[in-house]
Amino acid sequence: MRSAGPEIDRLIDLLAKLPGLGPRSARRAALQLLKRPDQLLRPLASALADAADKVRPCSICGNLDTRDPCGVCSAQGREEGLVCVVAEVADLWAMERSGAYRGRYHVLGGVLSALDGVRPEDLRIGSLAARCASGEVKEVILALDATVDGQTTAHVVAEAVAATGVPVTRLAQGVPVGGSLELLDDGTILAALKSRKAL
Amino acid sequence: MRSAGPEIDRLIDLLAKLPGLGPRSARRAALQLLKRPDQLLRPLASALADAADKVRPCSICGNLDTRDPCGVCSAQGREEGLVCVVAEVADLWAMERSGAYRGRYHVLGGVLSALDGVRPEDLRIGSLAARCASGEVKEVILALDATVDGQTTAHVVAEAVAATGVPVTRLAQGVPVGGSLELLDDGTILAALKSRKAL
Repeated sequence: MRSAGPEIDRLIDLLAKLPGLGPRSARRAALQLLKRPDQLLRPLASALADAADKVRPCSICGNLDTRDPCGVCSAQGREEGLVCVVAEVADLWAMERSGAYRGRYHVLGGVLSALDGVRPEDLRIGSLAARCASGEVKEVILALDATVDGQTTAHVVAEAVAATGVPVTRLAQGVPVGGSLELLDDGTILAALKSRKAL
Repeated sequence: MRSAGPEIDRLIDLLAKLPGLGPRSARRAALQLLKRPDQLLRPLASALADAADKVRPCSICGNLDTRDPCGVCSAQGREEGLVCVVAEVADLWAMERSGAYRGRYHVLGGVLSALDGVRPEDLRIGSLAARCASGEVKEVILALDATVDGQTTAHVVAEAVAATGVPVTRLAQGVPVGGSLELLDDGTILAALKSRKAL
């Protein structure tokens, strides 16, 4: 028993569904919100309602934005013809934060997974092939997780892109910057050794 | 750069203020919300708006509820005359979850803290004394954290209650159930030893 109204119980249940929050931290978050109604509770309610009303997937690349085409697709001065394929919008944000990439993107919306029943037709592979077939794409860079599912997806996407004649590359694998050899798995050491570079 | 609209940035900033969520997990939570607008984003927005509209502190005990007096204060069959003093609503919920207590409560709204500038007049001590002076309270049970601030607060509250002639008790200190002696601090061992019981 929580000795609170159904409104509070519902709030806690919904907060507990967020990644990173369990039932206990959801209770703490709910209390924090209720203790600060004007600084936190109402602003968050309106920010969520705003996002629900205005944020949409970009019809070109699948990024989430209030504009369509999204800020990245409509930005001037980005390298045309370069398309980086990522699984999720979170990966797109990670690439953007790095500041290392100035081309366009294509968000697949997930990775293939036999376990979760995600098939090629569930991902935005068809629209990627269509972009490639339009003749405006010069290179597709696969930036997918180095997991089994990620690599299976990379293989399927590479085949679909290759069929359009556009060259496909993928991010290099190796020792992460700042990474300690002692803590690396065998697969990474093997990949780093295979792709070793002359100094 | 996040390459998302100001709506998403604002949502992330607000989510990052919740306890248990940092900037990184707030981003993940925001994406999770945006990926499931109808299952998560809109329901959470309306749950928050609902809570902001309906949840109020109970005018008797300080508990948060959609009713005033709250569910605990207005419940039938609870032991009258027994008031458990807690610092926060979270503590009240913890007591209720234990199912070990069937009296009323009084939520102070925090603990005294020289560091955070919380003085006795910032806590709901006056209204507790008023409840005690009304003659309806037979015993006040202090259930405050066994920290320095918690115990300072307990001391001040005990004095205020004692002035009204109502007996004051506090939760026993000792070895937590399931607790390992090896991992206990010296203060707890000392307290447990002092309060040892004949078998």
